[in-house]
Amino acid sequence: MEGYDGMQHSGTAHARAFSNIAFIKYWGNQDHRLRLPVSSSVSMNLSGLYSDTVVEWGTHLEQDTLVLNGKVATSEALKRIVTYLDLVRELYKFDGYFAVSSSNTFPTGAGIASSASGFAALAFAINQSVGLQLSERELSTLARLGSGSASRSIPGGFVQWHQGNDHASSYAETIAPMDHWDLVDVIAIISKGHKAVGSTEGHGLAATSVLQEGRLKDVDVRFHRCKQSLLSRDFDAFAEVVEYDSNLMHAVMMTSSPPLFYWQPGSVHVMQQVRQWRTEGLEVCFTLDAGPNVHCICLSAAAPQVQSRLRELEGVMDVLVATPAGAAYSVEL
Amino acid sequence: MEGYDGMQHSGTAHARAFSNIAFIKYWGNQDHRLRLPVSSSVSMNLSGLYSDTVVEWGTHLEQDTLVLNGKVATSEALKRIVTYLDLVRELYKFDGYFAVSSSNTFPTGAGIASSASGFAALAFAINQSVGLQLSERELSTLARLGSGSASRSIPGGFVQWHQGNDHASSYAETIAPMDHWDLVDVIAIISKGHKAVGSTEGHGLAATSVLQEGRLKDVDVRFHRCKQSLLSRDFDAFAEVVEYDSNLMHAVMMTSSPPLFYWQPGSVHVMQQVRQWRTEGLEVCFTLDAGPNVHCICLSAAAPQVQSRLRELEGVMDVLVATPAGAAYSVEL
Repeated sequence: MEGYDGMQHSGTAHARAFSNIAFIKYWGNQDHRLRLPVSSSVSMNLSGLYSDTVVEWGTHLEQDTLVLNGKVATSEALKRIVTYLDLVRELYKFDGYFAVSSSNTFPTGAGIASSASGFAALAFAINQSVGLQLSERELSTLARLGSGSASRSIPGGFVQWHQGNDHASSYAETIAPMDHWDLVDVIAIISKGHKAVGSTEGHGLAATSVLQEGRLKDVDVRFHRCKQSLLSRDFDAFAEVVEYDSNLMHAVMMTSSPPLFYWQPGSVHVMQQVRQWRTEGLEVCFTLDAGPNVHCICLSAAAPQVQSRLRELEGVMDVLVATPAGAAYSVEL
Repeated sequence: MEGYDGMQHSGTAHARAFSNIAFIKYWGNQDHRLRLPVSSSVSMNLSGLYSDTVVEWGTHLEQDTLVLNGKVATSEALKRIVTYLDLVRELYKFDGYFAVSSSNTFPTGAGIASSASGFAALAFAINQSVGLQLSERELSTLARLGSGSASRSIPGGFVQWHQGNDHASSYAETIAPMDHWDLVDVIAIISKGHKAVGSTEGHGLAATSVLQEGRLKDVDVRFHRCKQSLLSRDFDAFAEVVEYDSNLMHAVMMTSSPPLFYWQPGSVHVMQQVRQWRTEGLEVCFTLDAGPNVHCICLSAAAPQVQSRLRELEGVMDVLVATPAGAAYSVEL
């Protein structure tokens, strides 16, 4: 990494990063502090679902502050950011504090990975404001320190995150640009409430499930099958491995100690319907993150059908539509 | 075993056997034909939910026939019985055919193990009509050949089924009489429809899940924890291991190839509520077999509350209540 050259004393930056949906999941760490995952993962960035983060950095500031969606954060959210910034200052060897202001375009904490886009945008803005001059690969590792899946929101389009074995080797990169395949994520919003157990805590519980070992045993097979089906645009193969990998992760979640149940009745209803629709010829499959919302991944030709059918289902409160999105970027101030 | 003495040429018998609910589950066989399971299990017989089976056996009969709930069975149900009877005739070395008439007191195929009580009653009636003079232990193995869980419906009260390693060693026996603990099974009926994939087929798929190995790795620990909590009437310990074991089985089901999803939206809703009620002090836990219905196991003091709360829940079509029941027995003709 280039690193801080010690010349600057203050800086300001505005960055935007998109959320992403994982097709091969990230669940469990080999190193919790550095968020080094136990397996590699695959994802797609999501248009429309992004975080905008403005950062003021300066050696004259007396403490880190956070404004989240227009409100001054004081408790858990601030604590997480400060822990992150402390780690970043330690690893990248610079001083000064940050005034962070971040806002999301989607409901926070409902399973649409607001921490992914949030920490990707923050990492991008930190790099700019401090003048660290990091490469995209290094930016991805910087984002990962705040939220594992944020590493995947730095590069654009379809992304793979190499698990790696230390800070520098655990990074994400594009495997195909956003226009490679016209996939659409039609998200069935089951609950807008904040989830009971956050992902960070959940990753710590993954190893307590007796099923985690079995899930990881053939994750490389699923990773390559997913990547290949993406690259060759083979929807049937893609759908099968995506649903399978989601079910494996939730099986581990539900059998950890304590167990984590993210599926709501409405989530199960949507999953049943999606499976049924696919047997009827509609090209759609589901995947769920650490939350109740169901990401219905479909071809663009099927998206209007999927959207209108989802709106009619009981338990579906709202429907969001996202297409593949690009990399994190700098917004002109 | 005593076995057929070759003296009788015909006989008639009427037997009754109760269904059972497993607290430590049976899912997967080491031998499919003999239904030797991959793990031992624990269950309780259920009052009120029984099969009544009348059998006429005779060397003068020209074929096996089955009347199920008053209707002449001709296809799958008959085929399964004939396959069973062929195996029994082969193992116990006798001739003749059976006219079987069986009826259940509960909805068939909705996940309340009608095959368990059905084959237990049938085994009991076969033994009597042919004059095999089998012991309870041998009767349990005879029932097991028709449906694994039927082995547990031969002995009374609270039951353990030793997995064994051959026909003679895989049998069930009482670990505590029915009056040992005043547990009640309050069953939330989510769907009365016949399940999509039956248990027999499901057992064949268990090994295709990459999670089955992890589930089985510490099944002995769960078996003993369940048995101990039953014997010492420790509801908290019992509740934890019962829900955990149910979730492990469904995790395996949902990740087999093809995946089996027995949970309906209403099932998930009831599971969520039961967990919530227990945190509020109500002594109740859940377990699900290969079907959508939720068995809410509670202390008798909590049963009225559990029953009335379940009736108010969306997705719950009916509620059945069962207390511990005794062994299979002969009904006077």
